[in-house]
Amino acid sequence: MTTLEDEMKRVKARVDEMILSSILPESSNTPEVDLLYKMMRDYPSRQAKGMRPFLCVATARAAGGKDESSLLTAACIELFQNWILIHDDIEDRSELRRGAPALHRMYSEGLALNAGDALHAKMWGALLGNAELLGFPAAFRVMQEFAMMVNETTEGQHMELSWVEKKRWDLDESDYYQMCRKKTSWYTVASPCRLGAIVAGADENVLEALKDFGLKLGVAFQIQDDALNIVGDQKKYGKASSDDILEGKRTLILLHLLNSADAQERKRLKTIMNKPRAKKTKQDVAYVISMMDEHDAVGFARKRANELMKEALSILGGID
Amino acid sequence: MTTLEDEMKRVKARVDEMILSSILPESSNTPEVDLLYKMMRDYPSRQAKGMRPFLCVATARAAGGKDESSLLTAACIELFQNWILIHDDIEDRSELRRGAPALHRMYSEGLALNAGDALHAKMWGALLGNAELLGFPAAFRVMQEFAMMVNETTEGQHMELSWVEKKRWDLDESDYYQMCRKKTSWYTVASPCRLGAIVAGADENVLEALKDFGLKLGVAFQIQDDALNIVGDQKKYGKASSDDILEGKRTLILLHLLNSADAQERKRLKTIMNKPRAKKTKQDVAYVISMMDEHDAVGFARKRANELMKEALSILGGID
Repeated sequence: MTTLEDEMKRVKARVDEMILSSILPESSNTPEVDLLYKMMRDYPSRQAKGMRPFLCVATARAAGGKDESSLLTAACIELFQNWILIHDDIEDRSELRRGAPALHRMYSEGLALNAGDALHAKMWGALLGNAELLGFPAAFRVMQEFAMMVNETTEGQHMELSWVEKKRWDLDESDYYQMCRKKTSWYTVASPCRLGAIVAGADENVLEALKDFGLKLGVAFQIQDDALNIVGDQKKYGKASSDDILEGKRTLILLHLLNSADAQERKRLKTIMNKPRAKKTKQDVAYVISMMDEHDAVGFARKRANELMKEALSILGGID
Repeated sequence: MTTLEDEMKRVKARVDEMILSSILPESSNTPEVDLLYKMMRDYPSRQAKGMRPFLCVATARAAGGKDESSLLTAACIELFQNWILIHDDIEDRSELRRGAPALHRMYSEGLALNAGDALHAKMWGALLGNAELLGFPAAFRVMQEFAMMVNETTEGQHMELSWVEKKRWDLDESDYYQMCRKKTSWYTVASPCRLGAIVAGADENVLEALKDFGLKLGVAFQIQDDALNIVGDQKKYGKASSDDILEGKRTLILLHLLNSADAQERKRLKTIMNKPRAKKTKQDVAYVISMMDEHDAVGFARKRANELMKEALSILGGID
């Protein structure tokens, strides 16, 4: 019996092949240009689950589309994930990605930033290949979705970064949800599913339902990801544990903790979270985590994630 | 009589209007998202000549095309210039751009990097508008040119950055030309002209000739730009004087100087150029400039620029 996991691996393998064969220099160039392509191939070569391209292919199948029509678009979703991770890792000053040093830690920030741009453009270049596969109108519709997806993602990333920079704490659950829908939901669930549906020629009302579904499930996904950053196994997770605390991220877990803590605890938590990454001590991080334990903040957030997942699935049940 | 300068200003005004009206948030969002759009509108709102969009519109005119068909593409060329400058300024650690602080100096590097990505995606989103103006095939052809243009530009930027990082000095004129063709010529001359020709429906042989023309003229342009960084008026030039020396850039001027200098001078020059930006003193910069004077390095480079310009114009003369 083929499990969902096997299927996801199979799609990922085909997507990887498409991606890596598209990231090659035109001709034997200079050693510098060769290095650029090596950098562009780095994140795509690291182990990853490939959930997003799988969502695209699976939705296309559900809507009656063939894999041959959806795989290129799925590969471009994975390309998106890769270039934006290169840039996010610079913006968040992350040290690890998928179990290895972040690209800007292996090379320089300048070279990594530039490689991210090169990969971004490769994504759009690859999307042009849809004209032959799907015809011009569908190929255009796919690119419109990508334009919206990048737009939402950069808006969400801006929100999260500026909350930290401006030391903003006047935030509630709904602020977190709005940021998450933009930063995570669009590119993690809503657009991958909608792109599968577009490729398969689904109607606009299906796209609308997939949007509602995807925005909710994407938030549930982000909450689980936030939780793994606190309680997960670093080796399995691929990112450094407690990175979110070091980066000062306003997760639902943290916002709940601040709401539950008493005034004195809250003051200490904010003082710690407002410190720049390099100034946060191990004791600081341990204190935040111990308070999260005490107030069952991870449990609260996971409960919310489950509710959102149920709501999302009920929307999916309503699609004809 | 309408001068070329007036015409360039007129095109720039129309392009600016198109750009600024396209960079607006979907709906009244949060203050954070509003700030992102403010950042995206910042460089496009600063004074600039608009040479690249003008080259596109002028070439389209020469090939029998109407301005209404070329202006959107011209605006996207200017969008390209704006997002890549945001990122280049981060990569080069530039402090000034168009007479004001670089975007990452006004905000943070993270927010500026992200705003550059958002503007990059806006460019591709805007290019989709060509489907209605030009029909699908020409709209696709335009996007293929953009994909190539970004690709060449990032390859050139990578070459230049890694020469500095790796302290490479085993470079000659032809290395400089190759880097310049990639970093500057494509997006400054070759692609703007070719895009105008594509929009006007010109033949492939015209595009080939415009490539040869553009690659040469672009190098001439870059040499002039390098010269202005040494001898230009900072106020008029908009960038900080001698920035190239501070950044350690391998300009033709510098490479000629290293070739002309004696062994002892060469050693001192390389020692200075290898220092990181923050370690270079005013005396260091003054020494490099005085040596450039002594060896007439700027004069040499400008002579090369003139030769290249003549060669470029002779190609243009050969187009039917």
